[in-house]
Amino acid sequence: MAATGDNAAAVGDRPVVLVDEHAHAWSPHAARERFRAGLIGPTAGVAAGHTQVNLIAVPADWAYDMLLFCQRNPKPCPVLDVTDAGSVTSALAEGADLRTDLPRYRVWQDGELVAEPADVRAHWRADLVTFLIGCSFTFEWALTAAGVPIRHIEQGRNVPMYVTSRQCRPAGRLHGPLVVSMRPVPPQHLSAAIRESSLLPAVHGAPVHCGEPGGLGIEDLGRPDFGDRVDAGPDDIPVFWACGVTPQAAVMASRPPFAITHAPGQMFLTDARDEQYRVA
Amino acid sequence: MAATGDNAAAVGDRPVVLVDEHAHAWSPHAARERFRAGLIGPTAGVAAGHTQVNLIAVPADWAYDMLLFCQRNPKPCPVLDVTDAGSVTSALAEGADLRTDLPRYRVWQDGELVAEPADVRAHWRADLVTFLIGCSFTFEWALTAAGVPIRHIEQGRNVPMYVTSRQCRPAGRLHGPLVVSMRPVPPQHLSAAIRESSLLPAVHGAPVHCGEPGGLGIEDLGRPDFGDRVDAGPDDIPVFWACGVTPQAAVMASRPPFAITHAPGQMFLTDARDEQYRVA
Repeated sequence: MAATGDNAAAVGDRPVVLVDEHAHAWSPHAARERFRAGLIGPTAGVAAGHTQVNLIAVPADWAYDMLLFCQRNPKPCPVLDVTDAGSVTSALAEGADLRTDLPRYRVWQDGELVAEPADVRAHWRADLVTFLIGCSFTFEWALTAAGVPIRHIEQGRNVPMYVTSRQCRPAGRLHGPLVVSMRPVPPQHLSAAIRESSLLPAVHGAPVHCGEPGGLGIEDLGRPDFGDRVDAGPDDIPVFWACGVTPQAAVMASRPPFAITHAPGQMFLTDARDEQYRVA
Repeated sequence: MAATGDNAAAVGDRPVVLVDEHAHAWSPHAARERFRAGLIGPTAGVAAGHTQVNLIAVPADWAYDMLLFCQRNPKPCPVLDVTDAGSVTSALAEGADLRTDLPRYRVWQDGELVAEPADVRAHWRADLVTFLIGCSFTFEWALTAAGVPIRHIEQGRNVPMYVTSRQCRPAGRLHGPLVVSMRPVPPQHLSAAIRESSLLPAVHGAPVHCGEPGGLGIEDLGRPDFGDRVDAGPDDIPVFWACGVTPQAAVMASRPPFAITHAPGQMFLTDARDEQYRVA
């Protein structure tokens, strides 16, 4: 399993975010055009207020297992759209091409990572069913609006993600561990962070754990399994949300013959607005 | 399509609710034992605070279409559990038998209702996959706690349900109209009714419509398609929630070769507590 920072453009220890500081003002359409043209990098903070999603495409004969895995593990895998087999478009993003419009992809064969291209047209198959799964980047806007600092955005890094010791509920041939994202939250902002994310259950909802990372079997917060290490403030509490990279971990563990996913932190920008997924 | 009150024990115009007035204090286990022993009737108000669910079982080769239909229509079809093919148990109710523990079932062949037994052991097939879908009876406890009167419980009737003119998003071979349940709500309680149900998205969440029933293509509130007519107070506003009978309407419209469902309003009592599905 990939063990350390997989920011595509990391230089030495310091990740370089190629998405610029004006990216929050991009429209989702403009963001997709830029990514289609070759721009890479984590999408946290891009296209303010628009819903970002995880992508996982599996052969049609694995689609039921994947949909059931998501249904049985709704915190890490809230499904926002499922395509018909072979389709490269989504109802969530007008004019988008799912094969080209993400910054970077991962291609998997028998559970092994075999390529990390910026375009997967050469890898696409007519029997692929694509799942678009809610992403915690979506609720970061709500947290920001409520005054909660987002450390990884402040530091220009990808969010850190960790494979936990908790197993997901299996479904058919699919099993694997829960993956979480972590944000250090100052104590005075913890209530707002929990409240605001709770009201967005379609993008992972409330945290699954706060505080001591050992409770999730995480040994060292400084060494995330995906994304970048992030620096916490002195009193910050680590807050863990279920993460849409979980289906990728299920691919690694369960070894379907073929799959395509997004690269962690490099999401698909939809036209949907976060507010659409807010329940109250 | 069945057009009028289908309370199993209706006598003339006045439905008779066989579930007694102490039923709110039953445990879910005790309720299931009584239904297994032959008790019938709507389950609104039974086993306070415990989650009730709609049931629909389809042959395994229709399971993906059904799961996708539910994913694409999450307001009427929030899936709380899916069994493995042939299983008659659910993680949501210890020791329960899905073939016997509901008050009454409906058996469908090619989209036609062919039987309404209190026990479906004689109809069961080894290839059936059972979907348990959130039910609005669940949020009635939250509404009651917030002071909202529940007219159909006051009147000892089943909740009225209506087939609307809104079509669900189709999935594979499945299509059909949105079905809604209706509760008349006094104006001073409308905010609480919306707020409390909104926080329970896994059991239909916020209403889909309030007021003028013509907006949903409903011609006469006094003639529900399922359940019983309910008497509204003079200033009550009709409030419509997406309803878990929607998959049954999809069965009627799409005509899969075989299906088993609950009878409308006569739900499966799980051990889960409503609070588990509350997001904030």
